[in-house]
Amino acid sequence: MRGNGSQTMNRTTLFGYWRSSATWRVRIGLHLLGIDFQYAPVHLVKDGGQQRSPTHRLRNPMEQVPVLTWTAQGHKHRLTQSLAILEYLNQHVAGSLLPSDPFPRARARQLAEMVNAGIQPLQNLWLMNTITQSGADGRAIAREAIQRGLAALEAECSLASELPTAAQPGDWLVGNAPSIADICLIPQIYNARRFHVDLAPFPTLRRVDQLAAEHPSFRLAHPDAQPDALPPLA
Amino acid sequence: MRGNGSQTMNRTTLFGYWRSSATWRVRIGLHLLGIDFQYAPVHLVKDGGQQRSPTHRLRNPMEQVPVLTWTAQGHKHRLTQSLAILEYLNQHVAGSLLPSDPFPRARARQLAEMVNAGIQPLQNLWLMNTITQSGADGRAIAREAIQRGLAALEAECSLASELPTAAQPGDWLVGNAPSIADICLIPQIYNARRFHVDLAPFPTLRRVDQLAAEHPSFRLAHPDAQPDALPPLA
Repeated sequence: MRGNGSQTMNRTTLFGYWRSSATWRVRIGLHLLGIDFQYAPVHLVKDGGQQRSPTHRLRNPMEQVPVLTWTAQGHKHRLTQSLAILEYLNQHVAGSLLPSDPFPRARARQLAEMVNAGIQPLQNLWLMNTITQSGADGRAIAREAIQRGLAALEAECSLASELPTAAQPGDWLVGNAPSIADICLIPQIYNARRFHVDLAPFPTLRRVDQLAAEHPSFRLAHPDAQPDALPPLA
Repeated sequence: MRGNGSQTMNRTTLFGYWRSSATWRVRIGLHLLGIDFQYAPVHLVKDGGQQRSPTHRLRNPMEQVPVLTWTAQGHKHRLTQSLAILEYLNQHVAGSLLPSDPFPRARARQLAEMVNAGIQPLQNLWLMNTITQSGADGRAIAREAIQRGLAALEAECSLASELPTAAQPGDWLVGNAPSIADICLIPQIYNARRFHVDLAPFPTLRRVDQLAAEHPSFRLAHPDAQPDALPPLA
């Protein structure tokens, strides 16, 4: 994979888990950008969590997925954190995961961070387990965080009418092309459903979710389409 | 403030709180980039939390700080999420909050996100209060999250010797100039001290913290230097 005058990426490998929403974001980005990659599953539940293994801790001391590795000019490269990975890949192939104008670009980053820093960390596996082991209901708190966060995201879409037109929602959260904002939204909506959050009050978010359900790159990235997907419980 | 061929930013206003670590990050960035701004305090404790007021919810439906507002070409602009704001400002003035080469740039974003998405959300005021109201110790869980997160960040610095030289720590977390990674680190170290996390095992992080303590922009941005700072408890 070569683009934009930068070095060729060889042996691009995504370490992840089918249902990890941060891994899912990177899969969507890779497919949207047309970048070939190997998928290397790290099972977050089996063996007490393979992300805690010494091998994986050398890939990511946070004991999390995703991790992207590749070689370029004989040198090993390794990145964690889904948004850092997506920004790198987008620049590498001169892609369109971010709007080109500065303010709409910032708006897409804002909406992505509302999920990445504002919602998803509060439903993180370690946090939920730790809260529950401490005597409170980690899953209930995660559910409330998702509900509140999506409500704020929908409110942001309403408030956007005050902003310059190019930063407003179009078919997607910012304008008429999928961006990192939508890439973060879709896995979060899936998690909202798993946590039985009522999506009825979020018409903009539901509309984008429907659009993504029909988009080839989003379909290829869906957890159920991954080799490490587990069958639904009977 | 004009730069890089983009529109002038007028009446740039930062809504924030002296001790909010995300506000603090934006203050560091504004000072490093030499951008003039007004500071508008939003008291996170007084009046049940001014971030919950109807006025502030129109600025940020997440009920959080910071929010940056300005006008350009007669149009109101508004951004939330500290990293989205910092990326915008850095591009606006062609600043150096991010390394210029793609991989070191990605590395700086990764380390910033380890704090922004991996640590700080787990010590968020709403989360700690909600956990505590649910019968567990929100502060103890936040403390553990900070300790684990900083340990992972220090481990990432050790692992960097395998990466291309330009992505390795120099004086700062990535190379020899302060970047968004350091901007996120410094407020997190301050919070670690408030939570009585032992910093002895983190020599790289402590070294950067010492360097920042002597840097003019970091000093100007410190909570104690803000107009809304509260005096220490007697």
